[in-house]
Amino acid sequence: MSTTTSSPSAPRLNINNINPHVVKAQYAVRGELAVKSELYRAKIASGDAADLPFKEVISANIGNPQQLDQKPITFFRQVASLLENPKLLEHPDVLVDTLGYKTDVIERAKWLLSQCQSVGAYSASAGVPAIKKSVADFLERRDGFPADPAHIYLSAGASAGVNTLLHIICADQNSGVLVPIPQYPLYTASLAVLNAVCVPYNLDESKAWGTDLETIKASYAKAKAEGVDTRAIVIINPGNPTGASLSEADIRSVIDFARQENLVLIADEVYQTNVFVGEFHSFKAVLRRMQQEQPGVYDHLELASLHSISKGMVGECGHRGGYFELVGFDPKVEAEIYKFVSITLCAPVLGQCLVEVMVNPPKQGDPSFELYDKEYNAIFNGLKERAYALHAAFSQMEGVECGEPQGSMYIFPTIKLPAKAAEAAAAEGRTPDEFYCMRLLEATGICVVPGSGFGQKEGTLHFRTTFLAPGTEWVGSIVKFHKEFMDKYR
Amino acid sequence: MSTTTSSPSAPRLNINNINPHVVKAQYAVRGELAVKSELYRAKIASGDAADLPFKEVISANIGNPQQLDQKPITFFRQVASLLENPKLLEHPDVLVDTLGYKTDVIERAKWLLSQCQSVGAYSASAGVPAIKKSVADFLERRDGFPADPAHIYLSAGASAGVNTLLHIICADQNSGVLVPIPQYPLYTASLAVLNAVCVPYNLDESKAWGTDLETIKASYAKAKAEGVDTRAIVIINPGNPTGASLSEADIRSVIDFARQENLVLIADEVYQTNVFVGEFHSFKAVLRRMQQEQPGVYDHLELASLHSISKGMVGECGHRGGYFELVGFDPKVEAEIYKFVSITLCAPVLGQCLVEVMVNPPKQGDPSFELYDKEYNAIFNGLKERAYALHAAFSQMEGVECGEPQGSMYIFPTIKLPAKAAEAAAAEGRTPDEFYCMRLLEATGICVVPGSGFGQKEGTLHFRTTFLAPGTEWVGSIVKFHKEFMDKYR
Repeated sequence: MSTTTSSPSAPRLNINNINPHVVKAQYAVRGELAVKSELYRAKIASGDAADLPFKEVISANIGNPQQLDQKPITFFRQVASLLENPKLLEHPDVLVDTLGYKTDVIERAKWLLSQCQSVGAYSASAGVPAIKKSVADFLERRDGFPADPAHIYLSAGASAGVNTLLHIICADQNSGVLVPIPQYPLYTASLAVLNAVCVPYNLDESKAWGTDLETIKASYAKAKAEGVDTRAIVIINPGNPTGASLSEADIRSVIDFARQENLVLIADEVYQTNVFVGEFHSFKAVLRRMQQEQPGVYDHLELASLHSISKGMVGECGHRGGYFELVGFDPKVEAEIYKFVSITLCAPVLGQCLVEVMVNPPKQGDPSFELYDKEYNAIFNGLKERAYALHAAFSQMEGVECGEPQGSMYIFPTIKLPAKAAEAAAAEGRTPDEFYCMRLLEATGICVVPGSGFGQKEGTLHFRTTFLAPGTEWVGSIVKFHKEFMDKYR
Repeated sequence: MSTTTSSPSAPRLNINNINPHVVKAQYAVRGELAVKSELYRAKIASGDAADLPFKEVISANIGNPQQLDQKPITFFRQVASLLENPKLLEHPDVLVDTLGYKTDVIERAKWLLSQCQSVGAYSASAGVPAIKKSVADFLERRDGFPADPAHIYLSAGASAGVNTLLHIICADQNSGVLVPIPQYPLYTASLAVLNAVCVPYNLDESKAWGTDLETIKASYAKAKAEGVDTRAIVIINPGNPTGASLSEADIRSVIDFARQENLVLIADEVYQTNVFVGEFHSFKAVLRRMQQEQPGVYDHLELASLHSISKGMVGECGHRGGYFELVGFDPKVEAEIYKFVSITLCAPVLGQCLVEVMVNPPKQGDPSFELYDKEYNAIFNGLKERAYALHAAFSQMEGVECGEPQGSMYIFPTIKLPAKAAEAAAAEGRTPDEFYCMRLLEATGICVVPGSGFGQKEGTLHFRTTFLAPGTEWVGSIVKFHKEFMDKYR
């Protein structure tokens, strides 16, 4: 065989010939700032950090509770340990008398094993049937309306669900999806990869980041005038990055608009238990009420609602569990959704089991209830306290405006930066908020995400920080940095 | 707000307006036959199966060891149980004295926890750094050449890795990828969804399903003549569905061809430990040897090689773990790969930890070694025995030709069906092999996949069965069914 003929002088793939839609996608949550923060973390771990002005990295860029202070809920993890090593079930007395397991943990593990055979086996493509049934029962209790396991799909976190839905909905480069601004950048990134159109609609910061129907209508009309075939509207409720919890009136407006324009509703409800102000209203419950009130009018609305084990008081991000429920979809379209999820085989089975315990936790009277309830409430209250502490600190900072924390895991303050800061940012090829966040990281080790990573109304600047990190020292570091930054660029 | 205006008379999405590329994709491994087999399984479970001619469903359609006979390896699952419930580590004496844990299990769990903090936390996008290091060490031991953790990406099974690579490689509808026929249908399905071109090349059944360079060249040339921009070549070694294990000479030919045509090599090596005949040669090792032998000639070849915890003697499909290693990729392209994987956040962290124990299992002298070694060998030998038993049965069946089992988890016999069977199949709108597999399922409860699900040379028919199911009774059922089928349609 000839080996002296042409040899390539460069790799086949380069930035100019690979998939341009991937290149176009942006995902700031894990972008340059996150990468730099990980380098700092490695430097500190290696003991070579004498030149850094901070001693630890605070990853406030990602809603990743267990990386920070949050401990997993005991019931969930005890069940998981038995699923992983079923041989432990041969020692019930040791489990109960010595290792702190309650009998309901053992029963749940046995039941889950009977349903999935082994957490090491692939499940059915859409998930273990009995777990889909548990999810349906949960939805029925939550909403007061029936749910059908046949329309529930277990997914590797809500992200995989969003990926599936957008893959089905977007037919070509003309397909549009209405996405709130600011938004979790999974949406814009996925639409970019699919070469579909993101139709942005601004949330109303002056009304606690609620939806404003006139704004949505205007965005839709503009896209329509440009020839975009808008097919769906995404609502993130409670909001990410805003934390906003929508009123039922807002939800009704959005549903009615979707009906009028025949749009698929995608309700990202992963923060449904992280609500400090008001209460969570699911799109499913509101839709079902509207269908009851006006029979026939909302029959053909399609709703996909998503949930996850990564958020709430569960915080099991690393296990990649979640589900979505479909309402009103054409059976042939659902068959294509089934096929699409089957190509990736199935969601992680242990993640599916954690979905089950999340939607069906110990009930009052169950042996594990007391501890579960205590842990759950402690996490909820801890998040709330830190949110308010952060809010109090931000409220005192020059040029920072920040509404009362409402929920989710984030605060998204407005920052007004001096013109000199904007100039310095431009000189670095950065937006002013990126520039601010980069300086914050370098000075304090605190990693937050600039508002531009989520989208923000033109002329405004923000950053998003989680309120997951323990203690208040880091909040003080932000206050101190901010003052120095403002003094320098004023 | 008006609610009496137009109401949609049908859902927005229907089979004619959703993503046509998803509709076009085919994935028979979990298609109609698999769905029907699950309905049978549910029917039997509900006690309502008196009218069925079989008492259990045998899922020989998917390489899903733990759904059938295979038990998980104790060391792996003991470590996993401690990762899930770290509070167990507070009772080392109970673990060791009563529950059968060895000290190396405890040490490994502690170390993994120190590296990932919690299996409930997101890891870095490309995986836990220490686990990537373990993978690199394994590759170095396996191949005798260094591996760099910076170019290793942990993924949710090999499937997620393939999805990532094809997303990057395929730039537009003109981008082509050479795919072996028969193939695991993930490749054709993913290319269909991406609206890229599958450039099929037939494997050579007469040479134990090896690669035939002339065939590959002809396929490539034909695609080139049709204007396809072929960018990569997929090799599945050991083969799925064929079980074939490529010789080093075959691998060298493919590498040289890739060099000549400047193609990216995608080496799907998930069955690397399932080899009964000959030995496994990794593309990485062979490429490095060729680079040593002829300095400079192979410098710019790009190789992506994939591995998984789902196969081998591990069989942890449900945990969705795997990795891919990149060699020779442009740093800017790798940055895009990093961004793409970051959009899905990270691979399941417990799956990552199982990758670690797979590549770094107990060594001779370690407390857990003896049991690990015994379990590993028992699984290997069990697979081999069943493969040969199946082969012996098939060899006696009229019109069935089946080479000696070589590896992986599959046998892929040729079947020659009578003309009357082909006519009956056509009357049902099925290919003859689909028709045969459907009748087999209905008569015996055994689910296999028709060759058309993987692609097969024109004019040939096959089916793929795993050899995972325990016992020999089901093999007898196939023999009996086959005789009756042939008698009926002769």
